[in-house]
Amino acid sequence: MEELVAGCVDAGVGGVGLWREETAAYGVEKTAALVRDAGLAVTSLCRGGFFNSPDWYDENRRAIDEAATLGAPVLVLVSGGLPPGSRDVDAARAHVGEAVGELVPHALAAGVRLAIEPLHPMFCSDRCVVSSLGQALDLAEPYPAEAVGVVVDTYHVWWDDQVWTQIDRAGRAGRIACFQVADWITPLPEGVLLGRGLPGTGCVELRRFREAVDAAGYRGPVEVEVFHADVWARPGRSVLDESLAGYLDHVA
Amino acid sequence: MEELVAGCVDAGVGGVGLWREETAAYGVEKTAALVRDAGLAVTSLCRGGFFNSPDWYDENRRAIDEAATLGAPVLVLVSGGLPPGSRDVDAARAHVGEAVGELVPHALAAGVRLAIEPLHPMFCSDRCVVSSLGQALDLAEPYPAEAVGVVVDTYHVWWDDQVWTQIDRAGRAGRIACFQVADWITPLPEGVLLGRGLPGTGCVELRRFREAVDAAGYRGPVEVEVFHADVWARPGRSVLDESLAGYLDHVA
Repeated sequence: MEELVAGCVDAGVGGVGLWREETAAYGVEKTAALVRDAGLAVTSLCRGGFFNSPDWYDENRRAIDEAATLGAPVLVLVSGGLPPGSRDVDAARAHVGEAVGELVPHALAAGVRLAIEPLHPMFCSDRCVVSSLGQALDLAEPYPAEAVGVVVDTYHVWWDDQVWTQIDRAGRAGRIACFQVADWITPLPEGVLLGRGLPGTGCVELRRFREAVDAAGYRGPVEVEVFHADVWARPGRSVLDESLAGYLDHVA
Repeated sequence: MEELVAGCVDAGVGGVGLWREETAAYGVEKTAALVRDAGLAVTSLCRGGFFNSPDWYDENRRAIDEAATLGAPVLVLVSGGLPPGSRDVDAARAHVGEAVGELVPHALAAGVRLAIEPLHPMFCSDRCVVSSLGQALDLAEPYPAEAVGVVVDTYHVWWDDQVWTQIDRAGRAGRIACFQVADWITPLPEGVLLGRGLPGTGCVELRRFREAVDAAGYRGPVEVEVFHADVWARPGRSVLDESLAGYLDHVA
């Protein structure tokens, strides 16, 4: 955490998205102080969600509280896959919508916006039944836009020919809560979770996405979020530098 | 090939979908005679497509000819991913539509129907830029339904909440050329190609799909198509028996 914060400050990066595991390991209050003292904004906290877990309600309330403590305006929701043994994806999706609704009062009270993230359909069964931006918007729609938004993550939605229409819809509804950038590379690794590429190393039209969220009125941060064992094995500063260079060349 | 045909006949299976590699290895004419003499129908030939290859036109004409020789009424098209170095998925999709159109006269003359198969979005960059049934139907639409149809493969489209509407659309347009069944299981293997499950081993609502294509007017065969290294390593007859049992329990 200290290396991350020092690296961001040194590189002139003004904000950082945090994950709950690392924040919990370092200590939530301690992280909040570290980041605040460095003058860094926390752009989002990953992740709430996993609404197929029995303890989803309490766990998400804790996540909201942690986001508030960290000063993160957004809690990213990875909604979870199918319950064990279930084949009922419609029911699982409906449950996500209802669960988000149950969290809205606490989120509003804490000043933290819930952001439903559509994950790539290859994660539909085991990580997130919300598989497209259109679905995420449908689920968010019953609730106030200041309480429930959506995430646009290029890695998850680049293949979708309807994504441009849905980004426009999201913008008009004021629902884009978070914009994340990663590139698509192949072959995918076993389990497919750690297969992302740094910006510019893959086939996604990243600048087209940035221009689309711009045109839709999004004025928030751009988060680079790359899960890959090889990337994670490298020194943080080297990854940060390559991310910034990739951002300038392919996103900005 | 001989074991396959004998196994189908022995199990009372009246038709089989064939793949070009195996058919070429055994000999196309020889396969045609073997299958015909056994009283077996060839339900489809996999696969044409790969329109991002320089020789796509000649290669697909050959595939159409082989389907005609085998008596396969349908040539399944796996349309190919992005051209090397390209990020232009829109252009790649448009090219698929144009390429299919160029093949229509030859397909009509040969009595072979071209079937555009949407593949799961995890294959979008490297195997098939057609990622949803709606896209496949959009691409087929300019051409006569007797020349160009679509494939509904449960493995590729199960995650899509719009698939039910699109199956209905496909049925009304007389476009369902092929119905294939495989189940979704995790974790996905490296490269994700060989990750399918036999019917009933995963989370797909297979019967709902069969009922949907039925309701859409589809009266053709149901093909079970399972790519998995473990399945392929087993004796063919054991796989066939489990496929038939899974079909009866979860599809029929």
